[in-house]
Amino acid sequence: MQFTSEQRLDDGVLERRFTLGEIPGILWTPDSASAPVPLILLGHPPLGLPRMYPRLVARAQRAAADGFAAATIELPGSGERPRWAAVDQARADLRRAMETGTPVSDEIIDALVLPLVDKAVPEWQAALDALLSLPGIGGPVGYSGGVISVGVRLAAVEPRVVAAGLFAGSLVPRAIFEEARRVTIPLHVLLQWDDEGNDRQAALDLFDAFGSKEKTLHANMGGHTGVPQFAGEDAAGFFARHLK
Amino acid sequence: MQFTSEQRLDDGVLERRFTLGEIPGILWTPDSASAPVPLILLGHPPLGLPRMYPRLVARAQRAAADGFAAATIELPGSGERPRWAAVDQARADLRRAMETGTPVSDEIIDALVLPLVDKAVPEWQAALDALLSLPGIGGPVGYSGGVISVGVRLAAVEPRVVAAGLFAGSLVPRAIFEEARRVTIPLHVLLQWDDEGNDRQAALDLFDAFGSKEKTLHANMGGHTGVPQFAGEDAAGFFARHLK
Repeated sequence: MQFTSEQRLDDGVLERRFTLGEIPGILWTPDSASAPVPLILLGHPPLGLPRMYPRLVARAQRAAADGFAAATIELPGSGERPRWAAVDQARADLRRAMETGTPVSDEIIDALVLPLVDKAVPEWQAALDALLSLPGIGGPVGYSGGVISVGVRLAAVEPRVVAAGLFAGSLVPRAIFEEARRVTIPLHVLLQWDDEGNDRQAALDLFDAFGSKEKTLHANMGGHTGVPQFAGEDAAGFFARHLK
Repeated sequence: MQFTSEQRLDDGVLERRFTLGEIPGILWTPDSASAPVPLILLGHPPLGLPRMYPRLVARAQRAAADGFAAATIELPGSGERPRWAAVDQARADLRRAMETGTPVSDEIIDALVLPLVDKAVPEWQAALDALLSLPGIGGPVGYSGGVISVGVRLAAVEPRVVAAGLFAGSLVPRAIFEEARRVTIPLHVLLQWDDEGNDRQAALDLFDAFGSKEKTLHANMGGHTGVPQFAGEDAAGFFARHLK
């Protein structure tokens, strides 16, 4: 892990850009911390870190205000990382299916999501190795948001992640439902009731599938990008309960 | 409205028992208030105030800590009020259907719930008239919990109630789904995912039916009485946003 730049944000948060091999990432830490702090991994959709930055920094600042470090890495095939032909093809297939009103087949969903999950999850785990070896970053670790299938896999396989906040807003392969049954950590699942890109019943089925004894579904009105501000407060409360 | 007794609770809350005609009720007010405070009406299941008191006083103390008054009245046919033969009969029919594994018919649900709603809602409105005329009780008014059909009707017909927290945990007549479409105030709906006495799909359908632009569903694991403590925190946050 190589730090490439740093800047101090207005509210006493140190933002450091890094690379982990070829993967760009960002780490935010609260200035005020006197002991090693818990860490929240900030997931995001595959739109590239430069485009996602404003929303990510807002989430990181909220985490820092609660006494947590936050970090994110770029997804494979997104942002400034090399394009990935197979996933680009699956995205084009998805777009065509949606434009023509054809039902989106399981094959398209699998081709779009599973390679991303297979590649991204070990990258998040490598980032975790590097981040937890830094002075000032302790644990426990939470994972928040982003492509929900990545969150499900990470929650199922990575024992250092002790709580996850997931956003039910993207297509989920059938195989991920099976992995959801193996998740046992506390979950906070956000659902936008009228999400245009999301099948509500599939989201409810996925919530039902999780093996966790403590899981909470928060459904709010509005479309994918219409998450109300108070939903963020509730999610922050979830991490405060489980990471402190 | 006649006050019949008063006592000061440990944490600076004044508890006053009252009767409104033949209806017993309880009012809790925070000592610390210098100006008229908002009011939360505390709904409850038809088990009688004496049995419900421990849970009600805990909810009232939380409301008082947030700067709100809280009040409740006995439901018709419950507690120390005269028995109500028609509702007793419907309860017996319901119990028999459940014991024999017969599907609970719409007729049984209607006979059990609609007379209660028809009688209880005007009583809550009369209590509201009396409570809002007291010095120290201002508004706005929220309604919280109890028989969900009572909450739906009250939210639909009573303009002084500006926000409602509802608990999806009881049988809902079809007619109440229609009334739900006319509800427009902000709603916070709690659902216990594995509630043994509740049809999960019916609860989701009722949530979908509400006409409110701001409505949030919080689903948690466990049975009817297993509501986790943090769910109460989230509900308190909802009222803090809408009554202050």
